[in-house]
Amino acid sequence: MSILIQNVLLADQSTDLLIEGNRIARIAPEIPEPSGATLIDGSHQAILPGLHNGHTHAAMVLLRGYADDMPLHQWLTEKIWPIEAKMTEESVYWGTKLACVEMIRTGTTFFNDMYWHRQGSVRAVTEMGLHASLAGVVIDLFDKAKAREQRAEVENAFAVAQENSCDRIQFTLGPHAIYTVSEASLRWIAEFATQHDLLIHTHLSETQKEVDDCLAQHGVRPVEYLERIGFLGSRVSFGHGIWLDERERAILGERGCAIVTNPCANMKLGSGMFAFADTAKAGIPIGLGTDGTSSNNNLDLFEEMKFAALLEKVRTMDPTAVPAAEILRTATAENAKIFRLDSGVVEEGALADLILVNLRALAYAPGHNFVSDAVYSGTGYHVNTTICDGKILMRDREIPGEEEIRVKAIECSGFLTA
Amino acid sequence: MSILIQNVLLADQSTDLLIEGNRIARIAPEIPEPSGATLIDGSHQAILPGLHNGHTHAAMVLLRGYADDMPLHQWLTEKIWPIEAKMTEESVYWGTKLACVEMIRTGTTFFNDMYWHRQGSVRAVTEMGLHASLAGVVIDLFDKAKAREQRAEVENAFAVAQENSCDRIQFTLGPHAIYTVSEASLRWIAEFATQHDLLIHTHLSETQKEVDDCLAQHGVRPVEYLERIGFLGSRVSFGHGIWLDERERAILGERGCAIVTNPCANMKLGSGMFAFADTAKAGIPIGLGTDGTSSNNNLDLFEEMKFAALLEKVRTMDPTAVPAAEILRTATAENAKIFRLDSGVVEEGALADLILVNLRALAYAPGHNFVSDAVYSGTGYHVNTTICDGKILMRDREIPGEEEIRVKAIECSGFLTA
Repeated sequence: MSILIQNVLLADQSTDLLIEGNRIARIAPEIPEPSGATLIDGSHQAILPGLHNGHTHAAMVLLRGYADDMPLHQWLTEKIWPIEAKMTEESVYWGTKLACVEMIRTGTTFFNDMYWHRQGSVRAVTEMGLHASLAGVVIDLFDKAKAREQRAEVENAFAVAQENSCDRIQFTLGPHAIYTVSEASLRWIAEFATQHDLLIHTHLSETQKEVDDCLAQHGVRPVEYLERIGFLGSRVSFGHGIWLDERERAILGERGCAIVTNPCANMKLGSGMFAFADTAKAGIPIGLGTDGTSSNNNLDLFEEMKFAALLEKVRTMDPTAVPAAEILRTATAENAKIFRLDSGVVEEGALADLILVNLRALAYAPGHNFVSDAVYSGTGYHVNTTICDGKILMRDREIPGEEEIRVKAIECSGFLTA
Repeated sequence: MSILIQNVLLADQSTDLLIEGNRIARIAPEIPEPSGATLIDGSHQAILPGLHNGHTHAAMVLLRGYADDMPLHQWLTEKIWPIEAKMTEESVYWGTKLACVEMIRTGTTFFNDMYWHRQGSVRAVTEMGLHASLAGVVIDLFDKAKAREQRAEVENAFAVAQENSCDRIQFTLGPHAIYTVSEASLRWIAEFATQHDLLIHTHLSETQKEVDDCLAQHGVRPVEYLERIGFLGSRVSFGHGIWLDERERAILGERGCAIVTNPCANMKLGSGMFAFADTAKAGIPIGLGTDGTSSNNNLDLFEEMKFAALLEKVRTMDPTAVPAAEILRTATAENAKIFRLDSGVVEEGALADLILVNLRALAYAPGHNFVSDAVYSGTGYHVNTTICDGKILMRDREIPGEEEIRVKAIECSGFLTA
């Protein structure tokens, strides 16, 4: 099975690109058409690596717009948590499918997810064709019985994943945060990860309150606490990482931990501004994510790139901070490295996770600089075609089954909020 | 000539809406079809007032992406100004037409513009069907001969506008800023405005440097300087207004001046963060604008609303700051009041400047809260239909002549940057 994309713009040059199986086989000015290949006319389109969403809670799309503009604590306790308690594997399945459709439409081919009812997400991703890291979640709330139960669930989910694996899905470990997961569970997760060579993803220092609480409880800041319990290492990535001091950044840099920033959610919830420059300076790999849609409220990484670059420019009062090409790399190659994927670049041998962007869209006129236009002017809705793992998931803006998924997900959402 | 929109969602209720001439004639659950009326099926769509762009330089769309991520001074002197010097009425005409197409597509029905070669903009807006305030620009650079020449040009342009007026276009006065326009010209503009009852729009305190320079030159801050020369009054609105102190805000509040904020441009150029809450508290009307596309880089006010709300939330660390409905009002009714337009609301008797938003777009699923979805999740590219002054400018995403305009504008842009 092969796909030949003809006359597409790659870094300002027109080229052909051949996909064989799930890899990019060849990139050259004129590639002879293999027999039986699917042909895609790439004229008036530019090719980019599919975008990678480094931090989200996909099924929360069912709660988009359900509660906004509220104080954080009230938002969580009165709105989000009560609804989440009603979620089932079935609602997570339909929610994740709707999120997948939105990601495919806006040019995202990988997402790193942390949510309950993992098997619902597994089914959705298996069907929808994306690459994903899906976490076995632990939130023991410092309850020993709950901790035992959740660890057993994680072990069980991992065993199931080993047997019935979809090779687009990576099993990761998702302790929620230091303020919801006991030290014993965090230590167990670190060991389990080492034993099975798994990635770990968790929330870190999203709010100042977390830091204050950690200081009060453990006498040290969050990163120092994690260092003390032997949690840190190159398999660990964090969502947010806003409220870090220099010493914490130095520790993360030394340990090879990564941070995934989520500017829209951080701004919308009034959490704070991620220090992009200081984090990069400490040698910490930086990825980009949208967070869940109840705190964003969409999954469009094109928009997120603009927010990330502009937030850092205004934070530092420096218009040269985080140029367009750098934030594009963050949302593609950097995220791919953090999540150990052989994607995020348009190169021979890489995974065929690719998107075609419509250069005839007004956002790309007059067209002085494609990367600037993509980051500062375009949206995900200018993506025409999305290919993941060598399969076409959207062609000329058509996603098979989209309307049924939209309707079923809305139905599920109605049950939850009724 | 009438238009009947049937079964459209208005504030969560399905309704019909009848347009007669350029006004909304009736809003009711079931309106009988007038003979000869154009029918629009509003099912699965929500109706909003067309968005109002309170501060832009439309023709600069020709420079979108031409120079980004550069230090402000170098950006202006090496890139923007040399190209602007080559602009002609013809390039401004095609640039403004391209900008109009982008605004129509993203749901904007009014824009407040400040740019050279005003007659080029007048021709474009006359043809494209939008409402606009187009400024007679003064940038005398403290040169007396240039000042005389530009004042004569403004008088002449005003006389021409009185004779060949398009009633969708308002003549306004656009002194660029206190650091580019002499006191004599500012005084002359204030008098000319009073004499002919015209609005004035100018840039104010976009950067800290402006304030420092004003203090050095005049011994007072910018608003105090403008107060001293008798420039302030309810006909004056300002773009930006970032670097104001309490006393300046109090003066603007007393004088009835308005401020139009441009969050994307302020963030992208690293200028600073507009103090939304403090400005509102001082009783200053606040509008919203995109600024020009070389510092944004698009004209999508849906995106701008999200930036404005999220920037204020993170600036104040308060997730309840500027809720969705408030920023939507800023981009509609508030801007309409500032620019003395009888629009910005969906009410009987108001101008028929209206947009229909596609509720089947993924950004609006599951649909818990339309206004939240529009501000935090949607983009202008989810607008299906744009009506201005009682005429349909875009129907089902079709804008007559769009492709020709796009191609001609790209050609013009090529001449400028060759």
